[in-house]
Amino acid sequence: MSIYTTPVLNINLKKIVKNYTSLKVLAKGGVAAGVVKDDAYGLGAKKVAEALYEAGCRDFFVAHAFEGEEIRSVVKDANIYVLQGIGEDSLNSFIRGNLIPVIAGFSMYKFWLENKIAGIKPVIQVETGLNRLGFGIEELEKLSQEERDEFSFVLSHLACADEKAHFMNIRQLERFLRIKEKYFKNTKASLSASDGVFLGDEFLFDMVRLGAGMYGINTTPYRENEMENVLELKAPVLTVKDLLKGEFVGYSATFRAHQDMKIAVVSIGYADGILRSLSNIGKVVFYRDGKPVFCSILGRVSMDNVVVDVSLIDDIKVGEFAYFISDDYRLEDMARDAGTIAYEVLSLIGNAKRTIKIYS
Amino acid sequence: MSIYTTPVLNINLKKIVKNYTSLKVLAKGGVAAGVVKDDAYGLGAKKVAEALYEAGCRDFFVAHAFEGEEIRSVVKDANIYVLQGIGEDSLNSFIRGNLIPVIAGFSMYKFWLENKIAGIKPVIQVETGLNRLGFGIEELEKLSQEERDEFSFVLSHLACADEKAHFMNIRQLERFLRIKEKYFKNTKASLSASDGVFLGDEFLFDMVRLGAGMYGINTTPYRENEMENVLELKAPVLTVKDLLKGEFVGYSATFRAHQDMKIAVVSIGYADGILRSLSNIGKVVFYRDGKPVFCSILGRVSMDNVVVDVSLIDDIKVGEFAYFISDDYRLEDMARDAGTIAYEVLSLIGNAKRTIKIYS
Repeated sequence: MSIYTTPVLNINLKKIVKNYTSLKVLAKGGVAAGVVKDDAYGLGAKKVAEALYEAGCRDFFVAHAFEGEEIRSVVKDANIYVLQGIGEDSLNSFIRGNLIPVIAGFSMYKFWLENKIAGIKPVIQVETGLNRLGFGIEELEKLSQEERDEFSFVLSHLACADEKAHFMNIRQLERFLRIKEKYFKNTKASLSASDGVFLGDEFLFDMVRLGAGMYGINTTPYRENEMENVLELKAPVLTVKDLLKGEFVGYSATFRAHQDMKIAVVSIGYADGILRSLSNIGKVVFYRDGKPVFCSILGRVSMDNVVVDVSLIDDIKVGEFAYFISDDYRLEDMARDAGTIAYEVLSLIGNAKRTIKIYS
Repeated sequence: MSIYTTPVLNINLKKIVKNYTSLKVLAKGGVAAGVVKDDAYGLGAKKVAEALYEAGCRDFFVAHAFEGEEIRSVVKDANIYVLQGIGEDSLNSFIRGNLIPVIAGFSMYKFWLENKIAGIKPVIQVETGLNRLGFGIEELEKLSQEERDEFSFVLSHLACADEKAHFMNIRQLERFLRIKEKYFKNTKASLSASDGVFLGDEFLFDMVRLGAGMYGINTTPYRENEMENVLELKAPVLTVKDLLKGEFVGYSATFRAHQDMKIAVVSIGYADGILRSLSNIGKVVFYRDGKPVFCSILGRVSMDNVVVDVSLIDDIKVGEFAYFISDDYRLEDMARDAGTIAYEVLSLIGNAKRTIKIYS
């Protein structure tokens, strides 16, 4: 008998590259940048960036400067853009990593002017409707044309690109075009992330920023997911027991057995990225003859354990693995059950410290 | 002008020790073990264990063996118990760290028999109603009295100890007493975590396991929190802008301004442990003359940013810090707004990779 105690995350770099490559085709010759912020959504920015670099990617986006510094050694001559911009706490990181800040507003621009890094042409982000980072019109007016021409790219970000028919897409496109025409006529432009590339050629501009789609997330939920699943998250069964009619499961006794059942306690919990909102709702898969058997999470997800109804599986064994993410129950499936989006689920699962990560 | 980009978590070790010490008094002479699993709920197990050790703590609980190994150097002669038990993937870690497994069931016990570590007396966990880890009666019957006497402690865990009057507390206590009387007459016992110590002396036994309470979580929500807040989570404002009536904020345009407003974009998101379920609900604090001004999160929490309504604050500045956890908005407050418990909020915030951690 084998006994295990630790969750395992299998990360398929080849499939990440495959997703990147198929999205890149949609960019129609524009730059297809790889977004590896948040440690590549937790999957390991260095590993992912290296694989993308080998596949020809030469432009990378991170959120924070130290994330850029971390990947520099594996993407030697690539452009690394930092979306959260530059400040006192990251300036040295920019210098060491030869990083390109995305300037978020006029105050940050003033900081940049006082702390320019030789050889770096920053990117400017402009506000088109997301109302997050980016220069408003009145801020753009404060810059001279000469100053505006110093930026390598003008960038904005779509709010509703995952809904093809949403009015915000056209509204933001029109605003972006107006800003570009008026202030950045000769500057290269970038508007779309993975979801934007499906909106039409007019959304492509000179660079698209491929992130979520590359990691297998369906960024276009109005159509079937064409991206391949890149993950397998599994955790071992620690014990199997009978649950008698009338007994309860987990904290606050939120599940009660209405008949005799069989349960398995699996060694993974919310400390490992299994959102507590999956309590009494989420599904777990065991494989029999290569086929998935879906089992329900019973009671509250706790910090280190999840209890699963295995009444359907006669030969369930201590030491075997329960699958939390697989081709049969993907990030979107868990997100739907948890009441959130696949991006959050991936970030939590990817960043979980205790999970053993295995790359292929 | 100062510009910053990175979130910061201030962790007050002295207050953790203070909380530990005041809970320890309630243990009335029994062992007061420190629970530092999940990297001390993300706050840094090595730092926390070291501080507790200096305060006299000599018994520590972790979830996984490698967590125990990590703290061994700072708690040299202490007992380190591993709640998820022992398996093939953790055996070497047990040997290197001189760790004590908590055996979860009969299959794991068989593994232990085949892989005994000299000098280690394991703990046995028994099922009393949580229906998670622990031997059932029929499994206990498979062990001889001699085998049962080999355990250093018999342990169980309460399901509803945060509700003083819950029937499960007495039910589990009675089951635990019956099991102890029948199978573990001469074995030391442990039933309660932080919440259990408030249930009465009969729940104390020989050891209590202090975790959540020590980190400032109110484990007894039926009374005011007597634990001190040990955390301050803050993140810098990247840009401030006007939000005009009719404009939207964030992904999927879930917030619309019904009047002209002022917003601040803060450099923290769900990748940093700010649950996405705080979208349009959570609160953020800015301080003016030492007093908190509460502001609302607008729109969706995104991976790296949160947008906040700062219409109330005339002199809001780029570069100043917004507080997400403080004495004025504690873990419970965020958990209530996020629709979860403080334990999950703490685990997510503590384990966030990108946040700069500062200890005092």
